[in-house]
Amino acid sequence: MKGTKTKRKAALKHLNEHLTEHVHKAGNEGILELICYNETSITFHNNIPIEELLLKCDEDQTSWINVDGLTDEGLIQKISKHFNLHYLLVEDVLNTDHQPKADEFEDHLFFTLKMLYRIEGESIDYEHISFVLGKNYLLSFQEKEGDIFDNLRSRLKQDNGIIRKRGADYLLYRLIDSIVDSYYSILDSIGQRIEAIEDNISKSATELDFIEIQKLRKEFIYLRKVVYPLREALNKVIKNEEGFIEERNEKYFSDVYDHVIHLIDSLDTYKDLTSTLMDLYMNTINYRMNEVMKLLTVITTIFIPLSFIAGVYGMNFHNMPELEMHYGYYWILGIMGAIFLAMIGYFKYKKWF
Amino acid sequence: MKGTKTKRKAALKHLNEHLTEHVHKAGNEGILELICYNETSITFHNNIPIEELLLKCDEDQTSWINVDGLTDEGLIQKISKHFNLHYLLVEDVLNTDHQPKADEFEDHLFFTLKMLYRIEGESIDYEHISFVLGKNYLLSFQEKEGDIFDNLRSRLKQDNGIIRKRGADYLLYRLIDSIVDSYYSILDSIGQRIEAIEDNISKSATELDFIEIQKLRKEFIYLRKVVYPLREALNKVIKNEEGFIEERNEKYFSDVYDHVIHLIDSLDTYKDLTSTLMDLYMNTINYRMNEVMKLLTVITTIFIPLSFIAGVYGMNFHNMPELEMHYGYYWILGIMGAIFLAMIGYFKYKKWF
Amino acid sequence: MKGTKTKRKAALKHLNEHLTEHVHKAGNEGILELICYNETSITFHNNIPIEELLLKCDEDQTSWINVDGLTDEGLIQKISKHFNLHYLLVEDVLNTDHQPKADEFEDHLFFTLKMLYRIEGESIDYEHISFVLGKNYLLSFQEKEGDIFDNLRSRLKQDNGIIRKRGADYLLYRLIDSIVDSYYSILDSIGQRIEAIEDNISKSATELDFIEIQKLRKEFIYLRKVVYPLREALNKVIKNEEGFIEERNEKYFSDVYDHVIHLIDSLDTYKDLTSTLMDLYMNTINYRMNEVMKLLTVITTIFIPLSFIAGVYGMNFHNMPELEMHYGYYWILGIMGAIFLAMIGYFKYKKWF
Amino acid sequence: MKGTKTKRKAALKHLNEHLTEHVHKAGNEGILELICYNETSITFHNNIPIEELLLKCDEDQTSWINVDGLTDEGLIQKISKHFNLHYLLVEDVLNTDHQPKADEFEDHLFFTLKMLYRIEGESIDYEHISFVLGKNYLLSFQEKEGDIFDNLRSRLKQDNGIIRKRGADYLLYRLIDSIVDSYYSILDSIGQRIEAIEDNISKSATELDFIEIQKLRKEFIYLRKVVYPLREALNKVIKNEEGFIEERNEKYFSDVYDHVIHLIDSLDTYKDLTSTLMDLYMNTINYRMNEVMKLLTVITTIFIPLSFIAGVYGMNFHNMPELEMHYGYYWILGIMGAIFLAMIGYFKYKKWF
Amino acid sequence: MKGTKTKRKAALKHLNEHLTEHVHKAGNEGILELICYNETSITFHNNIPIEELLLKCDEDQTSWINVDGLTDEGLIQKISKHFNLHYLLVEDVLNTDHQPKADEFEDHLFFTLKMLYRIEGESIDYEHISFVLGKNYLLSFQEKEGDIFDNLRSRLKQDNGIIRKRGADYLLYRLIDSIVDSYYSILDSIGQRIEAIEDNISKSATELDFIEIQKLRKEFIYLRKVVYPLREALNKVIKNEEGFIEERNEKYFSDVYDHVIHLIDSLDTYKDLTSTLMDLYMNTINYRMNEVMKLLTVITTIFIPLSFIAGVYGMNFHNMPELEMHYGYYWILGIMGAIFLAMIGYFKYKKWF
Repeated sequence: MKGTKTKRKAALKHLNEHLTEHVHKAGNEGILELICYNETSITFHNNIPIEELLLKCDEDQTSWINVDGLTDEGLIQKISKHFNLHYLLVEDVLNTDHQPKADEFEDHLFFTLKMLYRIEGESIDYEHISFVLGKNYLLSFQEKEGDIFDNLRSRLKQDNGIIRKRGADYLLYRLIDSIVDSYYSILDSIGQRIEAIEDNISKSATELDFIEIQKLRKEFIYLRKVVYPLREALNKVIKNEEGFIEERNEKYFSDVYDHVIHLIDSLDTYKDLTSTLMDLYMNTINYRMNEVMKLLTVITTIFIPLSFIAGVYGMNFHNMPELEMHYGYYWILGIMGAIFLAMIGYFKYKKWF
Repeated sequence: MKGTKTKRKAALKHLNEHLTEHVHKAGNEGILELICYNETSITFHNNIPIEELLLKCDEDQTSWINVDGLTDEGLIQKISKHFNLHYLLVEDVLNTDHQPKADEFEDHLFFTLKMLYRIEGESIDYEHISFVLGKNYLLSFQEKEGDIFDNLRSRLKQDNGIIRKRGADYLLYRLIDSIVDSYYSILDSIGQRIEAIEDNISKSATELDFIEIQKLRKEFIYLRKVVYPLREALNKVIKNEEGFIEERNEKYFSDVYDHVIHLIDSLDTYKDLTSTLMDLYMNTINYRMNEVMKLLTVITTIFIPLSFIAGVYGMNFHNMPELEMHYGYYWILGIMGAIFLAMIGYFKYKKWF
Repeated sequence: MKGTKTKRKAALKHLNEHLTEHVHKAGNEGILELICYNETSITFHNNIPIEELLLKCDEDQTSWINVDGLTDEGLIQKISKHFNLHYLLVEDVLNTDHQPKADEFEDHLFFTLKMLYRIEGESIDYEHISFVLGKNYLLSFQEKEGDIFDNLRSRLKQDNGIIRKRGADYLLYRLIDSIVDSYYSILDSIGQRIEAIEDNISKSATELDFIEIQKLRKEFIYLRKVVYPLREALNKVIKNEEGFIEERNEKYFSDVYDHVIHLIDSLDTYKDLTSTLMDLYMNTINYRMNEVMKLLTVITTIFIPLSFIAGVYGMNFHNMPELEMHYGYYWILGIMGAIFLAMIGYFKYKKWF
Repeated sequence: MKGTKTKRKAALKHLNEHLTEHVHKAGNEGILELICYNETSITFHNNIPIEELLLKCDEDQTSWINVDGLTDEGLIQKISKHFNLHYLLVEDVLNTDHQPKADEFEDHLFFTLKMLYRIEGESIDYEHISFVLGKNYLLSFQEKEGDIFDNLRSRLKQDNGIIRKRGADYLLYRLIDSIVDSYYSILDSIGQRIEAIEDNISKSATELDFIEIQKLRKEFIYLRKVVYPLREALNKVIKNEEGFIEERNEKYFSDVYDHVIHLIDSLDTYKDLTSTLMDLYMNTINYRMNEVMKLLTVITTIFIPLSFIAGVYGMNFHNMPELEMHYGYYWILGIMGAIFLAMIGYFKYKKWF
Repeated sequence: MKGTKTKRKAALKHLNEHLTEHVHKAGNEGILELICYNETSITFHNNIPIEELLLKCDEDQTSWINVDGLTDEGLIQKISKHFNLHYLLVEDVLNTDHQPKADEFEDHLFFTLKMLYRIEGESIDYEHISFVLGKNYLLSFQEKEGDIFDNLRSRLKQDNGIIRKRGADYLLYRLIDSIVDSYYSILDSIGQRIEAIEDNISKSATELDFIEIQKLRKEFIYLRKVVYPLREALNKVIKNEEGFIEERNEKYFSDVYDHVIHLIDSLDTYKDLTSTLMDLYMNTINYRMNEVMKLLTVITTIFIPLSFIAGVYGMNFHNMPELEMHYGYYWILGIMGAIFLAMIGYFKYKKWF
């Protein structure tokens, strides 16, 4: 069975690598981080044995356990045993190519999505992030070290926000919100590239513009895979009836949901813009081709008849009276000039240049 | 967190600016305007301190508080505190790139949409307008000074309409209705431009027509973003069960809803017309290209064989009996003329001109 | 407010005029017609004062009040006051560009749709018709004088049909049914035109065929606007729970609904056929273009090498032994002939003609 | 009213004739056939007076009344009176261009669909067939004489199947099943034609292939009209709550429903294949055009410069030293040969042949 | 009736063979295999008489009866009698071209899907597999000998997994899961081919690439037929209320459902990629065509005027003063050279090379 699982993962990895420049981190030790907090107190712990994990926090405290690196399967197995995580849930945590989704289990809510980075050379990289929300704890699993949550950590440390007053569900909201916000910078860069391509094409359309448009289309294909399922996943969280989310916090998840709808809408808008871009490219190429054809036709149409006339008087018949006329040559030159001018006039009238 | 919010707004602003010519007003002081009215009396107040705001109106009066300018965050914070507005609601009021939507809160209904202007040079500008409907008050937030509500204000002053007899919800209807009506002039200008382009193309299709069509398509993309969500938002208002809208006024909101449906339908119609326009443009270009190719072919096909004949008799072989024939030249000219006429006949028969 | 209403109407009128050849009648006096009937008796009245309108009919009689001409707003205002019609309803009666729809009011049912005419030169004209169905009366408002209901009037006069036995709702069914039936002649003419275009194209595709196809597409756009909403409107009438329609008459409305579904389906079929027509046109044009290119290539490919040979022996070098050979000329002519035949053979083999 | 009905039928007939080669049978007498059966006995009757129709069968027998020919309106009117058929139902029986549908009436279930034939020359013909299922009888109306039910009749005669044990609803299933099965031969012939076209195109794409593809597309348009509504009609029969279908027989109707779904699915598959065929055709045509253009370019590009050189030395200047060189001619021939070979090399390198 | 069934099967077989390289096995004897197991014991039986089939297993044991080969109709009839399988169910087991579906019967659940193989030469072959899930038994019917279930058999033998602890429904899950997993290798090979084609095209687009893309599109058409209905079938199993699936095992079926959703999503992604590939191909072909046209135009435009000049001085007029000028020839050569360079400059400026 292991064999087929690996095969399945391989197939998906293949697809995603085709669309992104995903860098799979080599297997090293996972990093464990524990934060216990309530309205009045907060403590930070690093790399403590899992057995002592929950003992570290008081009962009225919310605990946030963050794991960096998914290759240390031993660590994750231990955590899953500790928190009684379902076999299928762990599988989804480890499968870094899994789509965003929310899933309810008996005593926790599972949520997984992608963190997106734009890396050098304008390609997208992603990180697989999963959350497990329990009664008063939140587990977060990140594929790679380093994250965008430092801001949140420092907010937790200072006790000025409402973040310390609310439970693990509000923390989950803040984490998801940070990630969704990061999508907007991807969106923005897409917008900038569309404008750049538009400028290029209106100056001079080259095959490079086409390749750029193709690249954008691939990115839309990838983003659709990553962003669209998020809507349904968030909807599932909001509609959830098991009470994992407190009623007063639902408004916040609705707000993230709103942002995701907005993101999808903006992606669709950009997709439409890209398709008008494609048309613009095609039309420009086509227009230039027409110009080329017109030039060919103008030149050919003017000179082929003239050459014919020259050809006629280049014939070697003995009896060609025109050849002996004193001004024959000038007459013919005149006639040629007249034809030339008539042609030019005709093409001007037809607005060929 | 402020950072990411700004980033998100930036991304959206970027997109909308790409599609419109939105002019963001520089930050100056917001203008506050208060109108208290009931069936028998009406009073107007300007720029009074917020603390005294509600005291100004009698209890049986409806109050309309209008705020011009969203850059004076201090003012808006004060109002939001006064009316107990949710943090997320205020965010939506201030985010001038937010899509139209309706949202229910505990003791007020939130509604936001866009006012559209057609500015010189045929591009669209918009203004972000939000409403908060409470028990007997209506807050309206406008991005820019100046509005299209003066008509309504003077109606309120004269007490002849039903507007003074009904509450804040009817006022909301009248305001939304004015805005939706203003969309029709956008629609009308689109119609006129489509006709103009159609005329141009049937006279002579140039690249300018293509650019005009592209512009129209971008406008449809923008209008879809602004008008389509309005349908759902209005639906939410009509279906609302909290009683923010009196039953006898629901019919009016249904009417606005109808208009929006109609607008969407007309936009779709214009979109279809634009795509037939595109086909017309393409066909015209293509047709002309074919004409060019035919001309090229006719000229080439006629003169290349004739030139060949002339070439043959331009050869310098010593023994070419035709050259010495007395009427050789005239024979050849005759043959050339016959070929020429046969060709012309053939092309006439093929209906090439 | 009047101003914006006018603007809105103008925008819609613009759109519909773009798609049809709608002739707006100049404002003259409206014509009022009253028919009272039950199973045993029937009376016809013309142009009586509105105040006496309902007094004319017995209580057990059904009254049909027909108004021709919507420009006599005074008349319509009086009627609306008499029958207690809602302000929004009257607006829909007068707005001749309103889409088909059904709307329920407290004590009457509103239904509006378009009567379609095909006028000379193969364009569509339409007439705005509205119905108000009350307890035992039916109001009908027609934009123009003259209608297709004479058949029905004479049926009412003769008392042989079931029409006299049933109430105002059955009369409404008969009127709507007459109008929907009239759509079929539009459909039929479309069918004939599609066949005509198909014939033309298979003979010789000209730009006129393209213009005809474009015209058809515009008509589909218009018909969709007029016919599609009818489905929903009829559905609303059938599903109506207020009892405006007697149960035994619902079957009849279902039947009209069926016809409308069928109409929509047939329109879609014709639309598909039109798009295959477009492909046929494009392919024919393309095919002909290819023929032109082939001819150009054949002629050029044959004669350019031959001309080159002639050119070589037209050179004036002093030492060109071939020129002095006695049969040099004939040899060269032979070689040219051989090349010519080889070329022709090659093109025959390639099936270029 | 008759007039409009006729017009409506005419419009539909027109459309269907455009898509098929429907042969309307001339009006002759209808043929009436009655079969009474139960598990133990069976009797066949032909052309008996309608008055005696039901008396012929015992009460515990199921009766199948089959009518061939729809032009004998008198016969059908008599039957409709006898079985108390609704006026609208009879209309649907007689309208041979009506789409498939199921309709419930008070004491019978109406079902209509099309029998399809493939006639010579590869066009489709159809027959309009309607069923009326009552408590223990089944009426079947066929447009033309002759049917595919003989198999069923002989099955009824032999008492070995379950057909004699079950009621009229099971008989209806068997009849519908036979008709739906006959669609598969249409499907099969479409498959064969698609393969034939594919073969032709890959050999040599001609305009005939395009015409064949167009024909197929028209057939899909027709089949969609005939097969798609069948799904909903069958669904209505299965979901029917009036008990016209016994519960133990529902499984059978579900099975036919399954087949129809499958048919639709296969039609969609073939439609997709046809569109790939279209692309194949277009690409082949396009490819060949490119070959033509390349040949033109190769020939022109090679010989035009060579001709120019020959032209230069064909000039009659008195002072042209090359002309007097003893090996001038050979030098020039050599240079021409070198240019020729260089060109050929260049085109070989560019893979133009 | 047999006749029509055969016809129907033939039509479907035709379609599937068109899309795949399905190898129908010749009719030989079916192979019967019985495995009885519970948590503590397991026994394997081969080719035992059907009558003794269920006796072999204890009552608290789960029995898995696997049949290889569907051509031995006698065997299947016996089994169907033994397990009281419905006539329509057996038909679906034997119809190897049936789409995936789930169907509930009184005391068993029917499930059928396709096993997919990629055979040499990159075409897909499939095998029809059906399951019948009863109270404590599972029947599996495979079209061909040999399967991918050996892994499962050995898992059953070792008693370390949870597979022995759970019932026939869990076994069904494992079997379906194995099959669905095998689809991923098909997906992977598609991904590899898309990349290969993309590479080829960006090097040099040939007609072979087009054929490869067409092949891919056909495969998508086939896979859609096979994979899409699986979603609904699995949904039916999960939503099933008859209790064929234990509640604790539903999660597993949801997981397979998830995989199928994912597969469909990935197929759609690849389909989109294939369509961008098509655009890439088209653009490359088009681009090259433009290059050819440009070359033609450059050569023609440069040399035709030059040839004309040469032609003029090749005329034989007696009185042409230029011819007698001592440096006439060099002047003309100089002028020709100047024209040549100007042309080259113009084309360089226009970026034609």
